[in-house]
Amino acid sequence: MTKPNIALIGLGLIGSSLGHAIKKHGLAQHVSGYARSRKTRETALDIGFVDVVYESAAAAAQGADIIFFNVPMGAFYSLAAEIMPVLKPGAIITDVGSVKASVIEDISPILRSDVYLVPGHPIAGTEQSGPTSGFAELFVGRWCVLTPTPETNLRAVETVAKLWRDIGSDVEFMDADHHDMVLAITSHIPHLIAYNIVGTASDLEADTRSDVIKFSASGFRDFTRIAASDPVMWRDIFLRNKRAVLEMLSRFNEDLTALQRAIRHDDGDTLQSMFSRTRDIRKSIIDAGQDMAEPNFGRHNKTDEH
Amino acid sequence: MTKPNIALIGLGLIGSSLGHAIKKHGLAQHVSGYARSRKTRETALDIGFVDVVYESAAAAAQGADIIFFNVPMGAFYSLAAEIMPVLKPGAIITDVGSVKASVIEDISPILRSDVYLVPGHPIAGTEQSGPTSGFAELFVGRWCVLTPTPETNLRAVETVAKLWRDIGSDVEFMDADHHDMVLAITSHIPHLIAYNIVGTASDLEADTRSDVIKFSASGFRDFTRIAASDPVMWRDIFLRNKRAVLEMLSRFNEDLTALQRAIRHDDGDTLQSMFSRTRDIRKSIIDAGQDMAEPNFGRHNKTDEH
Repeated sequence: MTKPNIALIGLGLIGSSLGHAIKKHGLAQHVSGYARSRKTRETALDIGFVDVVYESAAAAAQGADIIFFNVPMGAFYSLAAEIMPVLKPGAIITDVGSVKASVIEDISPILRSDVYLVPGHPIAGTEQSGPTSGFAELFVGRWCVLTPTPETNLRAVETVAKLWRDIGSDVEFMDADHHDMVLAITSHIPHLIAYNIVGTASDLEADTRSDVIKFSASGFRDFTRIAASDPVMWRDIFLRNKRAVLEMLSRFNEDLTALQRAIRHDDGDTLQSMFSRTRDIRKSIIDAGQDMAEPNFGRHNKTDEH
Repeated sequence: MTKPNIALIGLGLIGSSLGHAIKKHGLAQHVSGYARSRKTRETALDIGFVDVVYESAAAAAQGADIIFFNVPMGAFYSLAAEIMPVLKPGAIITDVGSVKASVIEDISPILRSDVYLVPGHPIAGTEQSGPTSGFAELFVGRWCVLTPTPETNLRAVETVAKLWRDIGSDVEFMDADHHDMVLAITSHIPHLIAYNIVGTASDLEADTRSDVIKFSASGFRDFTRIAASDPVMWRDIFLRNKRAVLEMLSRFNEDLTALQRAIRHDDGDTLQSMFSRTRDIRKSIIDAGQDMAEPNFGRHNKTDEH
């Protein structure tokens, strides 16, 4: 079996990490790349995680067996429309977007019958962005969720799954709507809240704001790191996962209102019981080994000052 | 100048860390301890970060030059009332509570004229609790905020400040109300939100909840760690800092409502611009070196998956 030609559409953190990982494990015969910015394309070529770059997505995708979309999700539809005519029969379009139902909605209507769509989402990243931020080990030991529909060609699904496994990920299959609901609460709402509280703080009077920066180690700093993620990518995530995000945000707001009310009415019993029940889920995460994914677990953790 | 006798009222994370640090640097002639639980007292004595323990706070405080309150803030008033009659002239009461105006309000009315109150707040901690969780280095390189009133005896203030400096902290003086406002946004609201989102998640249907645990590395996990902090201590922080917390929570809610509205109305421009402005404050924190307090900074940070 010959190795596939792979096209990377988008050469930021995820695109460059994919390139590094594919090269490292020798998984492609040829890796082509496309990015909108000329500088990004040149940097990618200099670093060498792609073999060649093109000035259009269509040129990069032509002749590829697997095409990865690694760009903000708002661009998916027009990219798919652009490359569709030039794709070779049997080509597989896959992606790394954080929302999955919208990918199927965007691309399925224009998908050629001899081209396959395998939506994917590697649960991996850093707050860095750009072509210099990638590294081959980003996906090692992390989940990659694939959300094929019942109609998706099984060999195409297996091809994409094998590629993720070959670069070190654990592959999980899931319904796209369920994925979007789970990620709304585990990722999208936490990021929205982090952006929000950092925004609230930056509106404070200048003297208070300088003390906020000074004493940021008391909890706030963790939120600023999360809120340093790419604004365009996150804009698209919220627009693409609108339904699940608004649903989870409603629940979050109801619960926060209950806490606010308890504070206002000096209701210590309610506060204590609401603060206590969260320990179970923490324990489950530790039991599930999900806390160990962090390489620094086990040290004295000084981030939780108060 | 002879070394002071120090009493530690409360032998949890902060109390035990204080004991270890005071012992390590030889800063006391004698360290007495009190905790409500017999088991905690025995553990403290076994570990040896106190010289002796007593079954009452009054017994531990009698004869002490400096008395540290290291217990949930709801207990401060009754503790102060209990020990006041037995304190020796010139004794200094200080504390490590996360709210400062309420300490002054609670204790000042019953303070003897020959006893001094120096409210303090070390910006240091972990999500662990109990007498086995302390370590001498917890306060090294961390801020300790003291909030004396204009009436506070200056020698008492300097005695407490020197002790914190001797165990490695950077001491900062601040108005109590200003402290409470700054900590509301940097620490109390972040913790409230973390408790809240973990609570929202734990109310989800069982199958979704298990996937939330599985994919917690996508952002949620950081919140569960914060939400693992001691529920009683946090109950008291919110009750004690009610005014500033409710004020900051109102601002937070207004901003969150604006984001929610932008998502509902597909207003990508508003989302992108709100997500972009938070980068400035992040940059200020890095410039101020507050990001370096974390010993693991600089590694590939894999906590920001999405």
